[in-house]
Amino acid sequence: MSTAEPGVRHVHVVGTGLIGASLGLALTRRGTVVTLEDVSPTAAALARDLGAGSLPEARLSPDLVVVATPPDVAAGAVLAALQRFPSCAVTDVASVKGAVLADLRAGGADLARYCGSHPMAGRERSGAISARVDLFEGRAWVVTPTPETAAEVADLVTEVARAVGSVATVLPPEEHDAAVAVVSHVPQVAASLVAARLTQLPDSALALAGQGLRDVTRIAASDPQLWTQILAGNASAVRGVLQDLAADLDDLIGALADFADDAGADAPGARAALAGAIAAGNAGHARIPGKHGSGPTAYTTVRVLIPDEPGQLGRLFQDIGAEGVNIEEFRIDHGLGQAFGVAEVDVLPASATTLEHALTARGWQLHD
Amino acid sequence: MSTAEPGVRHVHVVGTGLIGASLGLALTRRGTVVTLEDVSPTAAALARDLGAGSLPEARLSPDLVVVATPPDVAAGAVLAALQRFPSCAVTDVASVKGAVLADLRAGGADLARYCGSHPMAGRERSGAISARVDLFEGRAWVVTPTPETAAEVADLVTEVARAVGSVATVLPPEEHDAAVAVVSHVPQVAASLVAARLTQLPDSALALAGQGLRDVTRIAASDPQLWTQILAGNASAVRGVLQDLAADLDDLIGALADFADDAGADAPGARAALAGAIAAGNAGHARIPGKHGSGPTAYTTVRVLIPDEPGQLGRLFQDIGAEGVNIEEFRIDHGLGQAFGVAEVDVLPASATTLEHALTARGWQLHD
Repeated sequence: MSTAEPGVRHVHVVGTGLIGASLGLALTRRGTVVTLEDVSPTAAALARDLGAGSLPEARLSPDLVVVATPPDVAAGAVLAALQRFPSCAVTDVASVKGAVLADLRAGGADLARYCGSHPMAGRERSGAISARVDLFEGRAWVVTPTPETAAEVADLVTEVARAVGSVATVLPPEEHDAAVAVVSHVPQVAASLVAARLTQLPDSALALAGQGLRDVTRIAASDPQLWTQILAGNASAVRGVLQDLAADLDDLIGALADFADDAGADAPGARAALAGAIAAGNAGHARIPGKHGSGPTAYTTVRVLIPDEPGQLGRLFQDIGAEGVNIEEFRIDHGLGQAFGVAEVDVLPASATTLEHALTARGWQLHD
Repeated sequence: MSTAEPGVRHVHVVGTGLIGASLGLALTRRGTVVTLEDVSPTAAALARDLGAGSLPEARLSPDLVVVATPPDVAAGAVLAALQRFPSCAVTDVASVKGAVLADLRAGGADLARYCGSHPMAGRERSGAISARVDLFEGRAWVVTPTPETAAEVADLVTEVARAVGSVATVLPPEEHDAAVAVVSHVPQVAASLVAARLTQLPDSALALAGQGLRDVTRIAASDPQLWTQILAGNASAVRGVLQDLAADLDDLIGALADFADDAGADAPGARAALAGAIAAGNAGHARIPGKHGSGPTAYTTVRVLIPDEPGQLGRLFQDIGAEGVNIEEFRIDHGLGQAFGVAEVDVLPASATTLEHALTARGWQLHD
């Protein structure tokens, strides 16, 4: 292991898809030597041609091997790398960590030299052709050492994550899997199940869809094959969270039955169950960190009518900028059948009144 | 009934909260006579002082009474209005229609003069003090006649909806309730249940939250008391949809058990169940109408790095406007611990490459 001289000078990337090729581009840009391999010679050559690194011609002695294959073959590729490079640190980038680790233990891997990781970056498109040099910038990169992992191996992985602009976060593998089950995998399942309800709906009902439905179901457009791998790979953690959710759902269905059976009945227990479910959602929502990784900030929303023609948003932002007000969040809501949009501008509460007066004075129509 | 002279000249509003007061403001602006009443004299006087209409001093003969009370007292107020104004059309604005109608039937109402409706407009804040003259502009206003409803009564309600800028849509009451169960009430329940999972999560896990979780749970911040009324009022329809969702969820939990019990097993049925659930979500999501009430349009997303300082968004939109490219949708994603944002600009596919080149030439860094 090249720990005598600290620092990563040479990274060998196994698997030149979106993640592997983007990592090669980013590391090459900062001067790290990157070598590439892929089971598909064409994919490896494409990544090289895009500038992600070189194809190895001589015997390699990298400081770190990054396995960036699809998750279902990651463990095998890590085992092969540990055997082929007997003194080298190895990581993988699969989005679930426990399943990979279990396969490595079963395969008798030298776990001192392995440290799993998960860059939380991706695109709707896959393959080296979609690679971006800045794919990892500002994204979390979770580093998941085990008790067996040598400290210097975890340090190498962390160094690479930071080198490409990611925010490195250390979590044990099982905590990583439990966390992504709740913050990523279960929201995906919920979005898909809500969206699936729309398949049988008449067009006249879909015409009532608003921004709430659009937000809840946006990620329902995700790729079925990728998500089958992710859910299967984190089956135990996802199943546990979904069982908790199903129990809450059954309670709600039961409470609704009390109203449906006898619409006029006084049903205090049922009413409390409904209110409790919405209130628990309030409490959970309030825990989601805001921008910059800080706690959630309460912003005030200013809504502005936007004529549906080029240049209007530019004019709006010029006017907001002229007031020196910073925009914290921004959305456009195009409602049913209307010839204009409503811009939702979130600003710090202290700025809201100033901004509302300034925009009105500049001829904007505030809304809602 | 004032059908000899078509057109609404005088509307009497019962309940001067957010909806009633906003309606009064909008109708007054267009020259309609508006009278106001509320069980709270203070609330009625406030709405009058804000310009929503006048308090009646003499015997009234309105063309239409709009009951804009909380949903749980709407039916009683409609019955009272039908008796008090024996030749007048009456509507209400409650967000569920079947429960109101059932109470009216039970109360022996003259259903020829009643036509329910539902303006799909609201704010996070309530009360006349939050009223906006343009609250209804561009929003759907569902008109829900029954077979008993006289055609001219439904026409009066439609006329008022259009007069305040809404898009009037006619649906039978039960179809309205079935539609909002799927497009509004069940998404609310799903968002709340997903967000409730976050209450027990360690901070280290919440730090991995991304845009997907934020989108799915945005409406989980909604008011428990209001939603208890809405869910209880539409209990039967919501319960049916939630039961379908629970059945799908149980199938998924069962499929995940196949993987969790034996991670190495070949589980083709389980894999198909996972992929099928995500694919059904794809199909449902694709049916959500896009802007202007048209079918969904596939936009191309251009991602741009935004330095976190005032004026940067203004500069971006000026630059986009200078290219004559129209922005279809716009979002800002602030990721974990990063000192900048990523603007997601959705444009027509034909404009994407032009825009990417132009923005790069103007010094913007494209992302992801």
